[in-house]
Amino acid sequence: MEKRWRVNACQSVNAMINFVSNNAQTGVFSVFGMRTVYWDFEKQEVCMIDQRRLPAALEVISLRTCQAVSEAIKNMTVRGAPAIGAAAAFGLALAVRESKFGETASCYSDLQAAAAVLKAARPTAINLAWAVDRMLKVIGGQLEGRTLEELQAVALSEAQRIADEDVEINQRMAQHGAALIEDGDTIIHHCNTGALAAVDWGTALGVIRTAFGQGKRVHVLVDETRPRLQGARLTAWELQQYGIPYEIITDSMAGHFLSRGEVQKVLFGADRIAANGDVANKIGTYMLALAAKDNGIPVYAVAPTSSIDLSLADGRLIPIEERDPEEVLGIRFHGEPIAPQGAKARNPGFDVTPNRLITAIVTENGIVYPSFEENLRKTLKR
Amino acid sequence: MEKRWRVNACQSVNAMINFVSNNAQTGVFSVFGMRTVYWDFEKQEVCMIDQRRLPAALEVISLRTCQAVSEAIKNMTVRGAPAIGAAAAFGLALAVRESKFGETASCYSDLQAAAAVLKAARPTAINLAWAVDRMLKVIGGQLEGRTLEELQAVALSEAQRIADEDVEINQRMAQHGAALIEDGDTIIHHCNTGALAAVDWGTALGVIRTAFGQGKRVHVLVDETRPRLQGARLTAWELQQYGIPYEIITDSMAGHFLSRGEVQKVLFGADRIAANGDVANKIGTYMLALAAKDNGIPVYAVAPTSSIDLSLADGRLIPIEERDPEEVLGIRFHGEPIAPQGAKARNPGFDVTPNRLITAIVTENGIVYPSFEENLRKTLKR
Repeated sequence: MEKRWRVNACQSVNAMINFVSNNAQTGVFSVFGMRTVYWDFEKQEVCMIDQRRLPAALEVISLRTCQAVSEAIKNMTVRGAPAIGAAAAFGLALAVRESKFGETASCYSDLQAAAAVLKAARPTAINLAWAVDRMLKVIGGQLEGRTLEELQAVALSEAQRIADEDVEINQRMAQHGAALIEDGDTIIHHCNTGALAAVDWGTALGVIRTAFGQGKRVHVLVDETRPRLQGARLTAWELQQYGIPYEIITDSMAGHFLSRGEVQKVLFGADRIAANGDVANKIGTYMLALAAKDNGIPVYAVAPTSSIDLSLADGRLIPIEERDPEEVLGIRFHGEPIAPQGAKARNPGFDVTPNRLITAIVTENGIVYPSFEENLRKTLKR
Repeated sequence: MEKRWRVNACQSVNAMINFVSNNAQTGVFSVFGMRTVYWDFEKQEVCMIDQRRLPAALEVISLRTCQAVSEAIKNMTVRGAPAIGAAAAFGLALAVRESKFGETASCYSDLQAAAAVLKAARPTAINLAWAVDRMLKVIGGQLEGRTLEELQAVALSEAQRIADEDVEINQRMAQHGAALIEDGDTIIHHCNTGALAAVDWGTALGVIRTAFGQGKRVHVLVDETRPRLQGARLTAWELQQYGIPYEIITDSMAGHFLSRGEVQKVLFGADRIAANGDVANKIGTYMLALAAKDNGIPVYAVAPTSSIDLSLADGRLIPIEERDPEEVLGIRFHGEPIAPQGAKARNPGFDVTPNRLITAIVTENGIVYPSFEENLRKTLKR
């Protein structure tokens, strides 16, 4: 069901051509020649960079079923709150095509089932549910008098709109956020929030890219981000493509560098933001924000307004995904297992950073300062 | 120069016999049948468990030169503040034997040179310098009218005393500390501070062992302790031998569990304690202590008084070793490198936890509470 191909320096010209023809309307060129998630109009498939393989190989896989997209989200072939939102939207477009029903009303019940599977793949990031609900709403509003083929076109067009908007939203966020970055800043960045975490450009890393593009000299201390090492594997790889200077640190080192006065800003993304500004993000964010606060260093969460969940009063209500302990235990040290046989591990994928530790939240509608309770609502109304 | 042998379940009977014959005077039986560092009286060599190989293999190597001991300390064949102190003491005993000079006065200048090399192997842990200085003082006081052979006996006897005392000190610490542990406690523990970090028994992990031995039900959340994974590799392995329930977590997860009310105590060791109670310990300790403080969970540093350095007013003056970036970059994820080719990394081995984050310091002379400035001095006078 799944095809896979490797993109290297030589091949990326083809990828670029493919990209340009598919996405000419956005005018955005990812430095690695393609979007993280995109629709192949010729083959009518969802394509995505396999993020489990980077940095060893830049491989793209194509998927033809909604179930395969759910799996890819769950096993983190594609990850990053905005990217999984877009992937899920394309997944629902596939689901319309897959429907066995000849008429649109019955098709919708298939879609609702597919939507439930997609949402359950990753419970913490609200963007996934947001994109799925948006797709359902648009498709649901077009059921009357449409052929299944027309409905497929509606679904695909909405998924493509979500993807295109994501790029545009990322760039607006980056413009707002870049104003916070000063020439000469050393920035600690957690997890991966770059082009790979979105359809293109990125959230927190997008801010850094834009600031760097404005000529500001920045240096990034890249939290490796255990257990899945998205920082070392993905963020370092992206920064290398962009020519932005960086050094990898273990997550546990951030406090040391903050306490030595070597860091001016802390940036990360968000998987879900509660109404009071509490931020659920990749595990380790809370301790990083604490260390920044303890040293008077500003902390910025960068996320689209689709990450804001006003239905939850505070962060304690955000569901935290607990993943396979093998993600913790499975790395190798000097070629050997890192833990004794039979060792158990815990693996919460996210934690909640209380709003009191966050200086501001950067959205596509601008920079939101406390009181978040009040100002997040205002941002959403813009 | 170096010999190496593997100890497994069958062989450990021999190791145990060896251990008992060498160390009968202390009456301490490590659960894995030997001390971490010991003198082989028959072969006149320093033996130590190769801690780089655990948990894949329990191997012992024997060393016959002081230079080899320095190397073993530097490359972390042996690690843990008390253990490297004892290893260095045995190293100096070897240095006396190695001296080319026929008379004791010239021998002493050789010893001073060897001492400088040993101290430079790991700059942060003060126990190393403490043990080396103690050896120099004792040997220096016995130079008059001694043959080189007699001086060798003096040196070896003092090194053995340091090793034996270390075990006894660890057990006294553990008794004091165990009083702090309550039945049912879940404890976050950082790095390895068990028998492997000392000559035997351990510091913070020694407290947990003793509390468990007293029948208190404890559960340990084991910080994996990047970059060298002493928690996952060594502490988990020790806990498994002791039958103490545990789960491994990444260092970045501690804050999550603390904030969810799942943790009652935080324990770690210390490589150097400044006069004001600031604690230099394995990188990541500061962020862990911050997260504990933020959630009102008590934080205990457990260390012998030989870790206290009254010559330094506060922790900012403690030298922090920066190690090879390869320790950060060298692990493998799904069999592949975790960072792109050419990636740079930083690797400070320790950080400083300010005294305001520490509830108490457990020493062999008792539990020291704030004000540390005053009470650490009192403890040293006991």
